[in-house]
Amino acid sequence: MWNFINPVNLRFSPDCLKNLGELIAGRSYCIVTYDGEPFANWVQAIRQSAGSPVKVVSNVEPNPSLNHLIQQARELKKCSPFPEVIVGLGGGSALDSAKFLAACESGIDNLVAMLRQGYDIPDIKTKIIAIPTTAGTGSEVTCWATIWDTENQSKLSLESKALYAEHALIDSELMLELPLGITINTALDALSHAFESLWNKNRNPVSNALAVQAIKGIFEYLPLLVKDLKNPKLRQKIAVSSTLAGLAFSNTKTALAHNISYEVTMKYGVVHGLACSFTLPGILTAMIGQDTKLDYALAQVFPVKLELAPQYMKDFFSILGVATEYADYGIKQTEWTAIVSNAFDGARGANFIGLKEVVLPQI
Amino acid sequence: MWNFINPVNLRFSPDCLKNLGELIAGRSYCIVTYDGEPFANWVQAIRQSAGSPVKVVSNVEPNPSLNHLIQQARELKKCSPFPEVIVGLGGGSALDSAKFLAACESGIDNLVAMLRQGYDIPDIKTKIIAIPTTAGTGSEVTCWATIWDTENQSKLSLESKALYAEHALIDSELMLELPLGITINTALDALSHAFESLWNKNRNPVSNALAVQAIKGIFEYLPLLVKDLKNPKLRQKIAVSSTLAGLAFSNTKTALAHNISYEVTMKYGVVHGLACSFTLPGILTAMIGQDTKLDYALAQVFPVKLELAPQYMKDFFSILGVATEYADYGIKQTEWTAIVSNAFDGARGANFIGLKEVVLPQI
Repeated sequence: MWNFINPVNLRFSPDCLKNLGELIAGRSYCIVTYDGEPFANWVQAIRQSAGSPVKVVSNVEPNPSLNHLIQQARELKKCSPFPEVIVGLGGGSALDSAKFLAACESGIDNLVAMLRQGYDIPDIKTKIIAIPTTAGTGSEVTCWATIWDTENQSKLSLESKALYAEHALIDSELMLELPLGITINTALDALSHAFESLWNKNRNPVSNALAVQAIKGIFEYLPLLVKDLKNPKLRQKIAVSSTLAGLAFSNTKTALAHNISYEVTMKYGVVHGLACSFTLPGILTAMIGQDTKLDYALAQVFPVKLELAPQYMKDFFSILGVATEYADYGIKQTEWTAIVSNAFDGARGANFIGLKEVVLPQI
Repeated sequence: MWNFINPVNLRFSPDCLKNLGELIAGRSYCIVTYDGEPFANWVQAIRQSAGSPVKVVSNVEPNPSLNHLIQQARELKKCSPFPEVIVGLGGGSALDSAKFLAACESGIDNLVAMLRQGYDIPDIKTKIIAIPTTAGTGSEVTCWATIWDTENQSKLSLESKALYAEHALIDSELMLELPLGITINTALDALSHAFESLWNKNRNPVSNALAVQAIKGIFEYLPLLVKDLKNPKLRQKIAVSSTLAGLAFSNTKTALAHNISYEVTMKYGVVHGLACSFTLPGILTAMIGQDTKLDYALAQVFPVKLELAPQYMKDFFSILGVATEYADYGIKQTEWTAIVSNAFDGARGANFIGLKEVVLPQI
């Protein structure tokens, strides 16, 4: 048995900020974004299109922490009535912050308690409009948000069908000025979402179809984009691939590579997009020939024969200048074995279709 | 700019009728289906799972006519209050009838007037649960219904986002007893949905991803299924392909082949699945090399090089015993030219990315 659902109204459109007023349609709204340029300019464009927001939360943190989100939520709760729409504008951190803030409509303490206990939150009235400004997060089409409980050195996951955005607006023009590092890290996050949805116990024909095209797109266009960062067409291709990957893993969640990444990010400070992707070549090497359905999908994504796919993948990372050995990230062998073993045991690890004894020697 | 939305909760599950009670969840409901076996048995299974329906409409017509639907709607309106859920159980005709009957909640006359004038209908409270018992219609994941105005010799399209099913339950065990003819005709309808979404002005990366896998599945498994009709695994493969095709064209609508089909069905009595598919090899022949994006998708679906694809497609139809020339359907050349020309001019024809002068000589 399998399920697929994704109720987000997805729109790829240039000039999406100018057209936002049409979707806000007179409802009261709050913008959740970052400080400084180009975000302040984009907030201005939204104001011109949709009128004044009741609030602009512009101090979103990278990897947002629970404490910081609670402070932002307390500020937002001063708006009475609570805004009808929360517009998240930014990378994954902004979109995830927007989801948390929308969910706190029904009470902050209650939300935090449910989040800590891992419960689904109840329905919320506030609608979310997600406008990603990076191509990687997929948060615009998922119903969860990653929140970092820095005090307890743990990663929390806020999750509910109520957190699906009403609209996801993807405008790759907003990504044209992204620097090389962020471009690579975010695209590798998307690549990992797509692969993780393929070697996943929750995979299904819909998620597989979307993941295959996401990976093909990233393999074909990311090496071109890193040499031509301001190319609008290449930005568009990577934005499309990222959202396809988002749709794919929106119904499977992630698997081993992501579960490994959380500890790597927390303990070694490795940025998320690298932490969740540098193990992909190794996992791929281990998984080829392990599962017929996976092989069928993999055969479609690589422009080479399957036995050459691991080398293709390593070359791809090499072109991007991204190291694929744990030692390159300052991790010692004993630590690494413990991280990988823990990752197999966690929730996302249980989604992974492979065996520890097959995978561990390859990564 | 492009959009994609599909809010249907899709579930592939064996024993779906036995588990329906969980989704009906105590709401009042009506079943819309066909007379006789196996449908009477299936209705009994639903009763056991979900309790007694307030109504069973069991006289669904093939290619349902507006007059017949109005009569069914008048009967159903005698239920007070109107059922909260309409369960459509059957082929496209049953699912489309269920949609019409759900939409008549707000008044039959009003609905018919809007349908005749081609307006979107307003929101409806009644929820739809779609359970296809053939693999072809795609109606379980589309927001429209085809209705035949036999008096005026025209095909009407009821359409509204309110007509997306709340749940689509696909259980290929319900398809195990389908005879050869229906198996082929419905699968070819699905094949046409997938191709029509590819050579469509409304195509997008999401619909393309789904269509590619739908076509691959039908090419690979339909020739096997026609020789082994009771093979559960092959039934499942074709059911999956049909729903993938449904998701693909749910956002693009159909194009030339379908627009040609309506007149062929109406005037020559050719069953829908054949009428909308026998032109596919000809259209394919004409379209190869005409459009880069289309070629990119087509290259993924054929197990042969693109220049050999037309012959592959003709062979595929030949294996199924389906003729691909208009003359085989008793249509004369002058009539055919008129039908194709008209089809280019209609609404679905306008979705088609090809040129009349390129396509007409090939079909």
